[in-house]
Amino acid sequence: MSAFVAVDWGTSSLRGALIAANGQVIEERPFGRGIMTVAPGGFPAVFEECFGDWLPKSNGLCLVSGMAGSRQGWMEAPYCACPAGFGEVAGKLAWIDPAPTGWRVALVPGLSCEEAFVPDVMRGEEVQIFGAMRITGLRDGSFVLPGTHSKWATVQDGRITGFKSFMTGEFYALLSQHSILSKTVAADAPFDEAAFAQGLAHAQGDAGLLHHAFSARTLSLFGRMEAAPLASYLSGLVIGEELRANGKSARGDVVLIGSANLTRRYGQAITLQGGTHRALGSEATWAGLAALADVISKE
Amino acid sequence: MSAFVAVDWGTSSLRGALIAANGQVIEERPFGRGIMTVAPGGFPAVFEECFGDWLPKSNGLCLVSGMAGSRQGWMEAPYCACPAGFGEVAGKLAWIDPAPTGWRVALVPGLSCEEAFVPDVMRGEEVQIFGAMRITGLRDGSFVLPGTHSKWATVQDGRITGFKSFMTGEFYALLSQHSILSKTVAADAPFDEAAFAQGLAHAQGDAGLLHHAFSARTLSLFGRMEAAPLASYLSGLVIGEELRANGKSARGDVVLIGSANLTRRYGQAITLQGGTHRALGSEATWAGLAALADVISKE
Repeated sequence: MSAFVAVDWGTSSLRGALIAANGQVIEERPFGRGIMTVAPGGFPAVFEECFGDWLPKSNGLCLVSGMAGSRQGWMEAPYCACPAGFGEVAGKLAWIDPAPTGWRVALVPGLSCEEAFVPDVMRGEEVQIFGAMRITGLRDGSFVLPGTHSKWATVQDGRITGFKSFMTGEFYALLSQHSILSKTVAADAPFDEAAFAQGLAHAQGDAGLLHHAFSARTLSLFGRMEAAPLASYLSGLVIGEELRANGKSARGDVVLIGSANLTRRYGQAITLQGGTHRALGSEATWAGLAALADVISKE
Repeated sequence: MSAFVAVDWGTSSLRGALIAANGQVIEERPFGRGIMTVAPGGFPAVFEECFGDWLPKSNGLCLVSGMAGSRQGWMEAPYCACPAGFGEVAGKLAWIDPAPTGWRVALVPGLSCEEAFVPDVMRGEEVQIFGAMRITGLRDGSFVLPGTHSKWATVQDGRITGFKSFMTGEFYALLSQHSILSKTVAADAPFDEAAFAQGLAHAQGDAGLLHHAFSARTLSLFGRMEAAPLASYLSGLVIGEELRANGKSARGDVVLIGSANLTRRYGQAITLQGGTHRALGSEATWAGLAALADVISKE
């Protein structure tokens, strides 16, 4: 029995998969047990509760990526500095000791990089990028992970050489739920492709997001856009700002990794800017953790 | 008796002044009675309560600028389109009818402009700009009004030809109070000039606010900045983004109009970018309304 258990333990969600030796996903389980819901010291119990029954079906190895390795998580797994490839990350796994009975559990470290004395960080996305490299066969390129804090990473010769975070998802939530725009934007409205494209286009101007965001107010004030399309327009404004900031990369070829809802929007945005893309979902996480498990089993 | 009453009635605050024929402020009163605190139909009563005793001391004229002229205010005073000078605005005053007994009350219209089919608006700032023109003698230049929604206006030959809004104050509040940064930023900490300058400098990079804002998180995560200076750093990031977006104007000569706390920060920022400025406060509002009252009395 050489199946192992892969876990993606984020801030607000927890997903696990039982993965066969050949990399195939045997079973997958999502839980609403992100690290924010777990009291200090409570991680082993939540782990056993969610995945304990997989012990006899596996070789007892469990690799955990994501915020579980942060200071607020199960145990802190210090960041691995860029440039970082597979080997650097595998060499910095943080093993839980003592592990839950019968298990060997390791936390995958996140990555850090630095530009002009300002650090940047990711936790969990590095595993998705490694998985995407496995799936696509690419050893060079731009990898984009849309989300609350989107990441744009550059991969050269199989290693992540640097990356930037963008608070795009969080800004969208702040603007649509807490700002003056919340009065006129129907945040839960269905996606409106034309309004999204209009927001994308407006974001390419010189005046920046502080100015462009105000247009979501004035278009409503002047009766030029309804509350439903305004949500997609605002989404286009923030995603468009993220693309604008990434300049040439956003007009090249990128690998998108994320939920179908987000990769669809980013894919449309990149196409409209003249770039090309392919999109991957959660399979990238499992492929990345499976590749790490491979390395460990060969050690 | 030819003193008149000037009122600046905004979203969250109400200020009034009794102003002599020569423009001198005889008495000034602030109230926490912004339009958001006034129920529909309640404006005449609040007006009487706050300023009724000034009727016998004045000629009964009252000019009101600010959000009281918005759809949620006392009565809607439709926007006056740019380019707009003193004459255009004086000609579009919205007279309250019937006025509170003994009074003649007019709402000053806000301004609108349009760029690439996207409108922009101001309400109240136009009066401050007119007042600043009176005080400084300038009939051309850049006028900057920092605030929740900052305005950058261009004046040519005594008329406001166009302007842009920036949601700078609101973004700062959203980020410091509702975002992930709220955990590590001490929003009420005293101003830290060095951290502010560091934020300003970082904001001049190419990657935009979505990326730069994340640095407030990572600097804290890596123990490179404490919670108190982080607040000033974040303020520098958003004000720096506003300046970056205004390019050449922000490196030229500007007239700043606003609270001392804000004009100080903006003044420092503009100086650091190689620009020059002079700063005005509430006197600009009273000078603008006094100039309008002059026009009316001569009609």
